[in-house]
Amino acid sequence: MWGRGLPRPSRKSQIMDAALACYAEQGYAATRLTTIAARAAVSEAAIYRHFSSIEELGAELYVQYFTLYATRLAEAIGTPGSALDRLRCVVRVSLALYREHPDAFLFGLEVLPAFIRRLPVGFDFPLEQLERVIRDGQSEGSVRAGQTNILAAMFLGALLRPIGLTRLAAPGALDLRADTSNDTLIEEAALALLRAPAR
Amino acid sequence: MWGRGLPRPSRKSQIMDAALACYAEQGYAATRLTTIAARAAVSEAAIYRHFSSIEELGAELYVQYFTLYATRLAEAIGTPGSALDRLRCVVRVSLALYREHPDAFLFGLEVLPAFIRRLPVGFDFPLEQLERVIRDGQSEGSVRAGQTNILAAMFLGALLRPIGLTRLAAPGALDLRADTSNDTLIEEAALALLRAPAR
Repeated sequence: MWGRGLPRPSRKSQIMDAALACYAEQGYAATRLTTIAARAAVSEAAIYRHFSSIEELGAELYVQYFTLYATRLAEAIGTPGSALDRLRCVVRVSLALYREHPDAFLFGLEVLPAFIRRLPVGFDFPLEQLERVIRDGQSEGSVRAGQTNILAAMFLGALLRPIGLTRLAAPGALDLRADTSNDTLIEEAALALLRAPAR
Repeated sequence: MWGRGLPRPSRKSQIMDAALACYAEQGYAATRLTTIAARAAVSEAAIYRHFSSIEELGAELYVQYFTLYATRLAEAIGTPGSALDRLRCVVRVSLALYREHPDAFLFGLEVLPAFIRRLPVGFDFPLEQLERVIRDGQSEGSVRAGQTNILAAMFLGALLRPIGLTRLAAPGALDLRADTSNDTLIEEAALALLRAPAR
């Protein structure tokens, strides 16, 4: 069915899944091609049939999931409602995407400037999307005054760092994948960061 | 003055400064030995006289500055006062250390599990230090109820992500080094995340 030398799509996705599993466990920087090959049960040559280098494999995955996250955020932010309601949706959508693609989400949390630069010109970054909702909330009077990129970064940091911690925490110390009982705490604390102080 | 083959201390610190500058610009994962050598104006062989590999160089720097941050946090957290006062000190000490060693601080913000594992057994992690203050605040009634590792991660994420953003933001969009006018905003928003809701 597949000609000689023609890459099989199934093998490509097998390599991509293996790479994500390695990144999630060891971090991107520490992951070697040989580890990915072993995990995918393919030869290193098979990886090079699909990707010109280990960086290209990383970049393709990073851009794919970063784009997916930005798309989901745009949907959350586009829902009708007050700024605080839409920010609450941001928290829910982020936890939902982590649960759907945990390895990819953890990889996307790594700040990799070389890959971020691969995103297309005009890409609507999560931070910029959040800044717009924050500005709406500031106009409404529901979000505290202040520089919007700082507030957006703080909100994103508060929301994403517990997810990143799941990778480092001792076994049993933090589960945000199966255990949803802390979702309300995360929502309330993240919103409290942005909410305008009562006068 | 220096014997043949004996490493000169000044050259070692020159290599370490150059490595930090490269990591801060490109991220750890994208930094090559040749780039560090060029920036330090030494040969690659000179680097190998001080470090057995590029990973050893990274690990030594990571452990050094992670330890420094943990020490400063312990001092901040050890100051007398309410839990919220001590958490305010955490924000101030973090911004101060970033301003003192900006490149090293940005490198320390990268989550590199392989290096984190190099820290000694019993190391008092920033997260664990924060959990203790949060527990104190929960006893006082000043900090919201909830799982302490989640709250500590959220506080740390809120505090550190704007600093990480300085590396990625467009020129002029975010300066937390020379410009201290946003320090109060960062303090207030980070504390609001943890403060117990008014009844």
